[in-house]
Amino acid sequence: MKKSILHLIAFALSISTITVSAQENIGKQLSKVYSPEVSADNSVTFRLLAPEAKKVAVTGNWMQQTSAAAPQVEMLKDENGVWSIKQSDLGSDLFLYNFMVDGVRINDPLNVYQIRDVSNVFNYFITNGDPAEYYKTKAVPHGSVNKQWYPSSLNKAERRLTVYTPPGYESSKDKYPVLYLLHGMGGDEDAWPTLGRVSQIMDNLIAAGKAKPMIVVMPNGHTSNSATPGNSEKGEYPIEFATPDVGSGDMESTFDEIIKYVEKNYRVKKEKKSRAIAGLSMGGMHTLFISSYYPNTFDYVGLFSAAFRINDKVQREVYDNFDQNLLKQKENGLKLYWIGMGKTDFLYQTGADFRKKLDQVGLKYTYVESEGGHTWSNWRKYLLEFSSFLFR
Amino acid sequence: MKKSILHLIAFALSISTITVSAQENIGKQLSKVYSPEVSADNSVTFRLLAPEAKKVAVTGNWMQQTSAAAPQVEMLKDENGVWSIKQSDLGSDLFLYNFMVDGVRINDPLNVYQIRDVSNVFNYFITNGDPAEYYKTKAVPHGSVNKQWYPSSLNKAERRLTVYTPPGYESSKDKYPVLYLLHGMGGDEDAWPTLGRVSQIMDNLIAAGKAKPMIVVMPNGHTSNSATPGNSEKGEYPIEFATPDVGSGDMESTFDEIIKYVEKNYRVKKEKKSRAIAGLSMGGMHTLFISSYYPNTFDYVGLFSAAFRINDKVQREVYDNFDQNLLKQKENGLKLYWIGMGKTDFLYQTGADFRKKLDQVGLKYTYVESEGGHTWSNWRKYLLEFSSFLFR
Repeated sequence: MKKSILHLIAFALSISTITVSAQENIGKQLSKVYSPEVSADNSVTFRLLAPEAKKVAVTGNWMQQTSAAAPQVEMLKDENGVWSIKQSDLGSDLFLYNFMVDGVRINDPLNVYQIRDVSNVFNYFITNGDPAEYYKTKAVPHGSVNKQWYPSSLNKAERRLTVYTPPGYESSKDKYPVLYLLHGMGGDEDAWPTLGRVSQIMDNLIAAGKAKPMIVVMPNGHTSNSATPGNSEKGEYPIEFATPDVGSGDMESTFDEIIKYVEKNYRVKKEKKSRAIAGLSMGGMHTLFISSYYPNTFDYVGLFSAAFRINDKVQREVYDNFDQNLLKQKENGLKLYWIGMGKTDFLYQTGADFRKKLDQVGLKYTYVESEGGHTWSNWRKYLLEFSSFLFR
Repeated sequence: MKKSILHLIAFALSISTITVSAQENIGKQLSKVYSPEVSADNSVTFRLLAPEAKKVAVTGNWMQQTSAAAPQVEMLKDENGVWSIKQSDLGSDLFLYNFMVDGVRINDPLNVYQIRDVSNVFNYFITNGDPAEYYKTKAVPHGSVNKQWYPSSLNKAERRLTVYTPPGYESSKDKYPVLYLLHGMGGDEDAWPTLGRVSQIMDNLIAAGKAKPMIVVMPNGHTSNSATPGNSEKGEYPIEFATPDVGSGDMESTFDEIIKYVEKNYRVKKEKKSRAIAGLSMGGMHTLFISSYYPNTFDYVGLFSAAFRINDKVQREVYDNFDQNLLKQKENGLKLYWIGMGKTDFLYQTGADFRKKLDQVGLKYTYVESEGGHTWSNWRKYLLEFSSFLFR
C-alpha cells in the first residue's frame, strides 16, 4: 500500500501548484494575477490576462449610463499581456461588473463571486465602510437559509420560497416574528438572498443588536411559474423578464397560503404585531395590496421604490376594493408604514401620487427619500433601515 | 394617478423587448441567438455573438485531454458575427463547458446555468436519456434544501452544512433515515448540491419509487475553514484547493458532532440501520475512516473513487487504530459496503489495495467498476445506484 500512499501525497502536493484536472475541473487557470483587488480607500483594480485581445474594457454599475450601450472604461495592456484599470472612490457598497473582450461581455475569470440578475450573470465585489460592512460575511453567529416549497392553489403545484431563520433558531424554543420580503419584476426567490444580501445583513444587524432576531420569508412573486430558473417544473427554461402574471392579482390574492405555511412549519408568533411585509418595485406593489387586502395582519409595512397597479384592466377584488381596504387597514391601526424612494427613480411620481392617497385616507407613514434611483444599492439600504424598526 | 399607471404599463411592455436597465441590470444583451441548444439526439450547438473576435472555441469536459492545455474545438463565424459549432453524440449526462475568445476563457453569456468547481465557474447543460433525466428538475414533489450551521469544537466556531429533506418532510410526523454524503478535496458543502445534483436526483428517485424518502446531510469537509468561499468568517477569500486540513484526521474524529446536531434538529431515526455514509475521493477516505472509527453507527457505507490515507505522518487514533476499528466494524455487522471506481481513475490501484485489506479482514463489499475516471459523471451515477439500496 506504500506506493499508493506516496502517490497520494505527491498528488496532494502537486494540486496546489499545478492543476486540478484530477477533480474534473477542466483547465484551471494558473495565475499570479488577482482581480478584482479592493483597496482600503475603496479604489478597485481590475485585471485580465488576455495577450491576444485587441480591446478590453470593464463595465460596472457604478458607471453613468449615457447611451443605450453599457457604459465602459477601457483597460490598458502591459508587456505580459495583462490588461488592467483602477477605478477610484467607488463608495461603500456591493458592486456588479463584467469585462468586455473584443466586444464580448464576459465574467472575470479570476473572480468566482457571481450573482445572476434577471438573465445576466455579473461578478461582484464589496468595498469597505458603512453600509458595505453589513453586506460581508463576518465572524458572527449565522442564521440558516432554506429553499422550501409551499402548497399553492395556483398552478396546482408547490411553489418555492427562501426562508432565513436567525442564529439560534434551531437550539431555541422561542417563537419568532416574521418579515415577508418580496422581490421585483426581474427577480425571484433568489433575488433578495443574493443581490439583497439578506442573510449577511440580518446576521450582522442581529449581532450588533440593531435588529431583533426574526425569520425572513422570501417567496417567488411570479405566479405563472413556481420557482427560479432551473428549479421549476419548466426545467432549465429560458428566462423571461416580464412573465404574464405581472399585475394579475394572483400573488396578492393567495398570500394567505404563504402565511399559513410559514405559521404551520416554523416556530413563529402568530399575531399582527409580529408580522411585517416589505417589497421592492413590483414587490412594493404586492406589499401595498397584500397589506390592505389582509388589513388586520401586518403591523409593519415597507414600500421600497414601489410600483403601483401595473395592469388596471385586470378586475380583482384585491385591486378593485383598494380604497376601502386601505381605510380598513388604517382604522385597524399599524405601527409603521415605511416608504423609501430614490430621487431619480422612474417611479418617483407614482410614489408621490400614492403618498397623496395615503394623506387623503389619513394613514400615517414614514417617508425616506434617498439619492439615486431604482437600484439594489437603495434596496439594501432600505432593508437595513426598515428592519431596524421592526418588532420593537 | 392615471399618468403614472400608463407610465407603468409602458414600462411593463418595454422591458420585455428592450432593456432591463430599470432593474439595475447593467446592459442586458439582446439576442435572437440561443446557446447552448440541446437536440433530442444529444447533439449540442454552441453559439456566441462576437463579430470582432479573431478566434473562438469551446472547451468542455466531454473532450479528451491530450496535453496540459484545456482541450478545445474551434467555432466558425457566420456573416452576422455569430460563431457556432455542433458537438454530436455526447451521451446522457450533465456537461460543463466554457468558451475561449482570443485566448481568454469565458462563460457563455447566453447561458445563466453555471456551477463553480473549485476556483473555476463553468456553464452547464443536461442532455437527454438515462441517467441525465434524473439530473433535471421535473414536475415531481420537491424536497427542501437548507444551508445551516452546526456547533463544532473545531475552529471554536460553527460550521456550515447543506441538508436535503425529502418531499413531505414538513407536513409529515414521520422520522426519516439519513445519508451523510461527503465531498472531495476540491469541494465544500455546495459541491454535492450543485455538481452532484443531489436534490434533483433524490426528488426523481423518490418520485419513481427507486429510493426511500431520506434526509441527505452534506457537511463541509475542510476543517481549516467553516464554509464555502464567501460564506465563512474569512469573507470573500481566495479559493485554495488543498487546505492544510487534508489528511489531518479532524473531519473524521469530530464527525459525531454532525450526527448529534442532525439527530437533535431533524426528525430522524436514531439507529444504525437508518444511517448511511458515503463520499467521493477525499470524502471516500473520510467515509472509510469515519465508518470504522464509529464502528457500530452505519449500516450502509459507500466509497466513490475513494482516496486512502492522504498524509501518513499524521498520528491520530482514527488512523492509527484503523485495522482494529475495521475489524470491529465487520464484527458489528453492516448491510452494505459499496465501492465504486472508474477503470481509468488515478486512484484505481489505491482502491485495489484497499479491497485486499477488506478481503483480509473478511468484510464483505459490493464492487462496481465503471468506465472513465475521477469524474462527477461517475459520482452522480454512483449516488443513483448506491442510494437505491439504502434503508430497504
